[in-house]
Amino acid sequence: MKKILTWMKATWEGLHLWNYLWGLKNCLDFSKWQDTYIFLANLHSLTSIKDAETMRKNRKAMLLDYFSLIPEDRLENITIYEQSKIDRINDITWILSSVTPYSLMLRAHSFKDSKNKNSEINMAVFNYPMLMTSDIIAYDIDIVPLWKDQTQHLEFARDIAENFHKTYDCEIFKMPYIHCDEKVMTIPWLDGRKMSKSYDNDIKVFEKKDILKKKVMSIVTGSETLEEAKNPDNCNVFALIKLFASKEKQDEIALKYKAGNYWYWHAKLELLEILENFIEPFRKRRKFFEENFDIIEKKLDEWNIKMNKLASEKYEKMMKIVGL
Amino acid sequence: MKKILTWMKATWEGLHLWNYLWGLKNCLDFSKWQDTYIFLANLHSLTSIKDAETMRKNRKAMLLDYFSLIPEDRLENITIYEQSKIDRINDITWILSSVTPYSLMLRAHSFKDSKNKNSEINMAVFNYPMLMTSDIIAYDIDIVPLWKDQTQHLEFARDIAENFHKTYDCEIFKMPYIHCDEKVMTIPWLDGRKMSKSYDNDIKVFEKKDILKKKVMSIVTGSETLEEAKNPDNCNVFALIKLFASKEKQDEIALKYKAGNYWYWHAKLELLEILENFIEPFRKRRKFFEENFDIIEKKLDEWNIKMNKLASEKYEKMMKIVGL
Repeated sequence: MKKILTWMKATWEGLHLWNYLWGLKNCLDFSKWQDTYIFLANLHSLTSIKDAETMRKNRKAMLLDYFSLIPEDRLENITIYEQSKIDRINDITWILSSVTPYSLMLRAHSFKDSKNKNSEINMAVFNYPMLMTSDIIAYDIDIVPLWKDQTQHLEFARDIAENFHKTYDCEIFKMPYIHCDEKVMTIPWLDGRKMSKSYDNDIKVFEKKDILKKKVMSIVTGSETLEEAKNPDNCNVFALIKLFASKEKQDEIALKYKAGNYWYWHAKLELLEILENFIEPFRKRRKFFEENFDIIEKKLDEWNIKMNKLASEKYEKMMKIVGL
Repeated sequence: MKKILTWMKATWEGLHLWNYLWGLKNCLDFSKWQDTYIFLANLHSLTSIKDAETMRKNRKAMLLDYFSLIPEDRLENITIYEQSKIDRINDITWILSSVTPYSLMLRAHSFKDSKNKNSEINMAVFNYPMLMTSDIIAYDIDIVPLWKDQTQHLEFARDIAENFHKTYDCEIFKMPYIHCDEKVMTIPWLDGRKMSKSYDNDIKVFEKKDILKKKVMSIVTGSETLEEAKNPDNCNVFALIKLFASKEKQDEIALKYKAGNYWYWHAKLELLEILENFIEPFRKRRKFFEENFDIIEKKLDEWNIKMNKLASEKYEKMMKIVGL
């Protein structure tokens, strides 16, 4: 079995559709036959969240969402853990930092993005790719499903692991590979822009029905007349339909687009129904976990211990190699 | 009792006179009436040492030197510990990094020095002042004896601690103060330059007699004739005499300088004797510890646990405040 790694951002209060499609859905597919690890990236979220209550609320919402969406039988191959509970992750980062050129970090997208936005960059933002590297190479991960924007994480992880190997003439890290899902990479969001909290253009998986409707109805579309034929492949609504509807349903709707006499408004209603049908079965499960959050905490404790052990073993090896 | 902090660099194989004067001697003075902490800065030394054997050799040499030079009864107020044994020190650093502007680190002398030297800077060099801050504020330290070059460490520690307080509306760190010993600050070294491994101009406290002689004899001096009167205050040899000789001895030698008919060579011989007299009593003690290094290891274990506990308590507080 290969080891697959992904993470849930703790900067959101609840999983949004993109998280689901990019992160969890991929994992659910992988977890059919591979060892799949998902961590709550709560050390990373310190870069932007500066208040304890938000941190705790987001943690709970994310865990509830994930646990609700993962079928019971799939949990056998899935391990969910918390980054902040891995005792040696920051220690591994320190050791790796001594073999990482400063110039490499200057090339990090996360750093350049922040710089371009003229925001006051904090050192956690700057060091973020270093910690990300530890997240990936501490557990002998084989494959990291990422979208194109994020391939740099893998490059860095491989470069830094190789630097350590060369510097200390050893070989203790596995070289991780990227897995890009082309379909998901190109999802537009409500307004056609990249989804972002600050644009308020995200859709949560467990969005309340009325808000879901409001958001779907607000998706930006073309301005053709009712009669005109429309191109589904240029449409943000259809892009989402493609990701959640069956092949038959997709073809059926595509035909309507092309035939004309079909409003974007109609497509939005279809999308809404598709999303509702998708999420409905999970709502009950989420309610159950809300009332029994201790089940999640217990499972997490167990998984945190398991992953902690792996990282500690890697750390001990590194310490011996560097002479500490 | 106030808490005093200093550290021994693990980048040297053995304590040199400057370390002694700046670090340990200060501590020995403080430890008469204050709680004094000395840590082996071995995480910092990863920035420059990339080989396990050197790390281990330096560690042993430094510990032997320190333990040999500290009078038995003074150990009551002194705690020696290893940076790498403090489980939460890197975790504290990560949390602090999220409230530390990137621009602050760009101002760090250590970073600017390396940059000026055109060396390839690694991320541990860049992050060094961050870790240093944790080293200082994790244990509620009151006073850090430093020389003038290093006041920035204290500025950074205070700035970053204050940033954390402001960001999270709390007050959990003590503001540390600097103690500058003017006398020590201005010590020239053998060739009048700042002491540095790369200049090979250091003198180890436990230098072998023949090497000590060679090094003392090579101190750079003026070029006056034998007959000429000499100014002791301009002389690298006399600068060291002043730090190790009694007041009477200093005055006696100063008179000889001013009287003329006195070679620098004579002064060097006097300095050699003074240094020999200073170190001789400690040689036996060092030999004892060399043969009984387990005594040091045992004491260290105990102290590491003590300091680990302090840092862990601080870390737990921080985690609660940030919501992790």
